[in-house]
Amino acid sequence: MSIWNRKDLIALADLSAEELLFLLETAKAFKGVGEREIKKVPALRGKTLINFFVEPSTRTRISFELSALRLSADVINISATTSSLQKGETLKDTALNLEALLADIIVLRHSSAGAAHFLSERLHASIINAGDGAHEHPTQGLLDGFTILEKYGRLQGLEVAIVGDILFSRVARSNIYLLTKLGAKVTLVGPSTLVPQKFETLGVRVTHHIDDILETADVINLLRIQHERQHKEYFPGLGEYVTLFGLTKERVARLKPKCLIMHPGPMNRGVEIDSEGADGARSVILEQVTNGLAVRMAVLYACGGGKGILT
Amino acid sequence: MSIWNRKDLIALADLSAEELLFLLETAKAFKGVGEREIKKVPALRGKTLINFFVEPSTRTRISFELSALRLSADVINISATTSSLQKGETLKDTALNLEALLADIIVLRHSSAGAAHFLSERLHASIINAGDGAHEHPTQGLLDGFTILEKYGRLQGLEVAIVGDILFSRVARSNIYLLTKLGAKVTLVGPSTLVPQKFETLGVRVTHHIDDILETADVINLLRIQHERQHKEYFPGLGEYVTLFGLTKERVARLKPKCLIMHPGPMNRGVEIDSEGADGARSVILEQVTNGLAVRMAVLYACGGGKGILT
Amino acid sequence: MSIWNRKDLIALADLSAEELLFLLETAKAFKGVGEREIKKVPALRGKTLINFFVEPSTRTRISFELSALRLSADVINISATTSSLQKGETLKDTALNLEALLADIIVLRHSSAGAAHFLSERLHASIINAGDGAHEHPTQGLLDGFTILEKYGRLQGLEVAIVGDILFSRVARSNIYLLTKLGAKVTLVGPSTLVPQKFETLGVRVTHHIDDILETADVINLLRIQHERQHKEYFPGLGEYVTLFGLTKERVARLKPKCLIMHPGPMNRGVEIDSEGADGARSVILEQVTNGLAVRMAVLYACGGGKGILT
Repeated sequence: MSIWNRKDLIALADLSAEELLFLLETAKAFKGVGEREIKKVPALRGKTLINFFVEPSTRTRISFELSALRLSADVINISATTSSLQKGETLKDTALNLEALLADIIVLRHSSAGAAHFLSERLHASIINAGDGAHEHPTQGLLDGFTILEKYGRLQGLEVAIVGDILFSRVARSNIYLLTKLGAKVTLVGPSTLVPQKFETLGVRVTHHIDDILETADVINLLRIQHERQHKEYFPGLGEYVTLFGLTKERVARLKPKCLIMHPGPMNRGVEIDSEGADGARSVILEQVTNGLAVRMAVLYACGGGKGILT
Repeated sequence: MSIWNRKDLIALADLSAEELLFLLETAKAFKGVGEREIKKVPALRGKTLINFFVEPSTRTRISFELSALRLSADVINISATTSSLQKGETLKDTALNLEALLADIIVLRHSSAGAAHFLSERLHASIINAGDGAHEHPTQGLLDGFTILEKYGRLQGLEVAIVGDILFSRVARSNIYLLTKLGAKVTLVGPSTLVPQKFETLGVRVTHHIDDILETADVINLLRIQHERQHKEYFPGLGEYVTLFGLTKERVARLKPKCLIMHPGPMNRGVEIDSEGADGARSVILEQVTNGLAVRMAVLYACGGGKGILT
Repeated sequence: MSIWNRKDLIALADLSAEELLFLLETAKAFKGVGEREIKKVPALRGKTLINFFVEPSTRTRISFELSALRLSADVINISATTSSLQKGETLKDTALNLEALLADIIVLRHSSAGAAHFLSERLHASIINAGDGAHEHPTQGLLDGFTILEKYGRLQGLEVAIVGDILFSRVARSNIYLLTKLGAKVTLVGPSTLVPQKFETLGVRVTHHIDDILETADVINLLRIQHERQHKEYFPGLGEYVTLFGLTKERVARLKPKCLIMHPGPMNRGVEIDSEGADGARSVILEQVTNGLAVRMAVLYACGGGKGILT
């Protein structure tokens, strides 16, 4: 573990290509664990992981919980709804209390960008960012990268399109950092309100026409349209969005035969993606979920001071 | 395990008498585990069980959770209230996601009849029906059967009365299938709106007078009156129900000395059952709860591919 | 374990000085476990603990859950919000059901004084009181005592001030019983409505002027002002409370250099305590949290029939 010397995983923007590859390689080793008869290794036995989800997310919480259990850690869940910890208490006080419980790892989902970074500077525990506002969702970026790498054997030179609400998407940001650092060519697709030209400073291409990428993309990653979060002033209306950017049956037919269709879930079928895309041969959407476990095991292992060979 | 070749437990209606007896025999072996100093066997170590309760039920959830922990499985709970999985997602998509997490066993409680069957046809994971609408609640039927068998040493020829809202009761249905297949004589008791004559096609007797069974029953199983669910047009009013069908002190006195009083819980004291019945010598209501653990361990073990001797 | 022969921990008022010291000594042995690489001992392996929180409390629930996991027990959480157990069911019926699940230990948080005692007389399971109304919160009293003992090496003769809403505080009651039995001199501080003179019958001093204790206290324990619970007729208004009883920067400066500042959390900064007190060198507030784990491990071990050397 000479390459990895971090106690936290906050943002893929902070990591070198070598660090990203180290995590992806480690995830590859862990993927085998999930396929065994006994899906458990003793790597984090006796360690305590606290899943602290101030913003709710069953999907990500379960993925971290299962990953930790498969590493034999003890897991405690705290959700926003149950957290009286928060009652009249600052995030810092809450976090200091979690550390005083001798937690080894705190997985934090929070609605404010920077929340995980804030904790990482104040606590000895490892902080894993499970999504902070519109900033980053690093394990989602890693699992997307892992899935592409597993299918193509490389990221270098691949054409990856990310479609949807990029402006408010932490998934998009984490994907962009990982993919560009590892040599993929990223194109962002969406209405100009949600995909402003300024993203080009991150080393990606921006287009407002999905036609521009349909026939050339090696990977198309559809972001979830979050009705509930959409800022009215940015969003063109659902019908118009589907017409302009939805991955309809017709558009699926124009994709390259080997183009991977990805989605971080949960899908809105008939909105950003039709069933032809979601369930067809090109879809790797469920594999992303499975790979999420391997990637999170790798991250918990690397940051949480996992010991011993991966046996 | 030559008799048992199923990956799922959906409905007792599907099982042969031999399969039912196999589960009851296996439960007998597991009952001993709960009485040990260390209530744990390694049978499902490294397996993942997801308790997916779309319709809430603390009681049944806990029983499955404890059963799984005593088999050394890893358990993840997802409840309807916390499940953002469900947000804009079909049951099928949610289930495919759970399978992609490499869950070995999914225990499903759902308000729609057929939900568990639907999943069982689409997933490789074992699906255990923990109650689907008014269809079946097979582990409740098994634990009721187990409790009677433990007390009488047989089911063959016993007179079993089931009293209450049969029409909307999955507990009643699962009991009827198990008891008739294993040779008991079942009588359903309740108002004609809730116990229509057509139930006779299932091989049971129907009566609208509790007097008909009080002095002959070997077992009387009182269903919970679910105020909150009652369809107004079927239900005669609570006072009238108690007068006609409640197991009052006077009625308890007319039961055979060895008649077993059963209830799936939680009880409405003073409605379907009085404390004389609930707490008296004939009551096996708390034993049903204990037996629920043994039965659920047996079901998880049989369906989940438990390995090795029960040690 | 010749000194300890109780199955339950209900109230520190019931315990002898020897029993209190036994628990504090045992906690000292367990504190080391939390500092190890592998924070786990097999003392309660195969035992089942049910965290039954009818009144919500994330903080205390987590502390008990972690303590139990570190003793290798299986833990089930039931919260008020999820508990359909309670639906139309008395506390006694619910408790009998928990016992029928073969729970070894039930940790109960309840809004009614006496709830834990009620269960302890009716169940074979060990009942641990995690706070019952305004009666007692014995593990909080123990962890406060443990923290003082750890810092001073003794309780005998120490001047301990408890400031705030004593009348409705279970934390205050448990502290008073432990501290007076172990020889500390306790002074209660607060407005006369919340700290009536009658408390002197417990062997403590009462004052309505914080100035009386600032320069002499060896320990000052600030209770949380519970806005939401305050009975309007007792409480002087928040601004007035801060002026008269808040541990402001100015008051902190008048404390002895070695005076310990304690708080059961969560703190209302700027109300009962200012940041100068909360975060300064005298504060042992976070150590209280850490010590809570050691104390709860000791209590679970003693009551739950933990076996074997603490290894």
